[in-house]
Amino acid sequence: MSAEARLLQLGIELPPAPAAVANYLPFVRTGSLLVISGQLPLTAGRLDARHRGRLGREVGPADGAEAARIAAHNILAQARAALGSLDKVRAVVRLGGFIAAAPDFTALPGVMNGASDLMAEVFGAAGRHARTTVGVAELPLGACIEVEAMFEVDA
Amino acid sequence: MSAEARLLQLGIELPPAPAAVANYLPFVRTGSLLVISGQLPLTAGRLDARHRGRLGREVGPADGAEAARIAAHNILAQARAALGSLDKVRAVVRLGGFIAAAPDFTALPGVMNGASDLMAEVFGAAGRHARTTVGVAELPLGACIEVEAMFEVDA
Amino acid sequence: MSAEARLLQLGIELPPAPAAVANYLPFVRTGSLLVISGQLPLTAGRLDARHRGRLGREVGPADGAEAARIAAHNILAQARAALGSLDKVRAVVRLGGFIAAAPDFTALPGVMNGASDLMAEVFGAAGRHARTTVGVAELPLGACIEVEAMFEVDA
Repeated sequence: MSAEARLLQLGIELPPAPAAVANYLPFVRTGSLLVISGQLPLTAGRLDARHRGRLGREVGPADGAEAARIAAHNILAQARAALGSLDKVRAVVRLGGFIAAAPDFTALPGVMNGASDLMAEVFGAAGRHARTTVGVAELPLGACIEVEAMFEVDA
Repeated sequence: MSAEARLLQLGIELPPAPAAVANYLPFVRTGSLLVISGQLPLTAGRLDARHRGRLGREVGPADGAEAARIAAHNILAQARAALGSLDKVRAVVRLGGFIAAAPDFTALPGVMNGASDLMAEVFGAAGRHARTTVGVAELPLGACIEVEAMFEVDA
Repeated sequence: MSAEARLLQLGIELPPAPAAVANYLPFVRTGSLLVISGQLPLTAGRLDARHRGRLGREVGPADGAEAARIAAHNILAQARAALGSLDKVRAVVRLGGFIAAAPDFTALPGVMNGASDLMAEVFGAAGRHARTTVGVAELPLGACIEVEAMFEVDA
């Protein structure tokens, strides 16, 4: 099943691709690589209060994973804006997850799975990717997570 | 106008490309990609006291943006050292910005614009890039920012 | 001398490639690039107590550099699992080092050299790479370092 068909089947409606929040582009294509800027868990341009702050303090693991999934929705929205259709994605190559973490919060991989799971659901085997997840001090707008991506796409 | 001509017009004189501060290279080329190591805001090998410390504590936003611009100067110096001329750059693909941030400093995108703006000034539309900006705990030498880059270059 | 021969000569026995700790893959290949997920300093799936915590607090610089080297062993194990043999590596393009850092620990490059040195030992000139090293707040499992990699490999 194609990625766009799977999205429909899953009942996922992608948001409009968020604008970049400063002087850069949300994505750049180079050869068969599509590089997507770090995406925040914004919904309609807004950061929900539940997704603001640090994991291990203001934000619990379930809300963190939900935020990761929302950031991944925005990644898909950017990929569709770049390509016209997610069916032109050949593979998700890499996700980079930056999680705002309070001291001693080390359960980062489970939070980041909120993003990774979406890729596997939408792209199947082609959605399984390399990944780096780290806990950072602060993120733009006080978001609890930021996710960047690299895709392999049709030439 | 070419990137080198634009540099001249802007009155920007690039510094010598800084040496790597440990056992690695300042850049590596693979196919049409040029990958540039994280650059600090060093001027003549020195980190100005104004660019040492954390945003939101020792370093104000304007000094932080200036530091981002200096790091971007060093990125351009590395690209010129790699290619012989910035005119061989086809596009700036991605910048990664790591900003030393005190608790609750979330105005990271404006600081990072110091680097992004330079790319747009020098390369025009080809200088607009994907970007990820995060706030980190510490950086080498106590710098307030480190910027890495990926360029698409002539084959 | 080939990379596999050099490993033998150095007396380095690579560990089995660690499984990914969550819903992602340890590596993905795209064209001539091999992207390797962030690797922790795990030995036989375990994080030694000496490699848990922050540089500048629980973990000293020598133990940190040792942890970086172990993470780099795991990177090589992943590359071998991906390619069948390290002799198919053409070049190490980039390492990304994320070091858990206590406030004011800025001696990050020396710690990360534990990973970079191994690449130079195993691959010679082809092992010298671009690099970004930053100090982060927290890492998965409480590890003191996480290292990701990009290699150029035989088509």
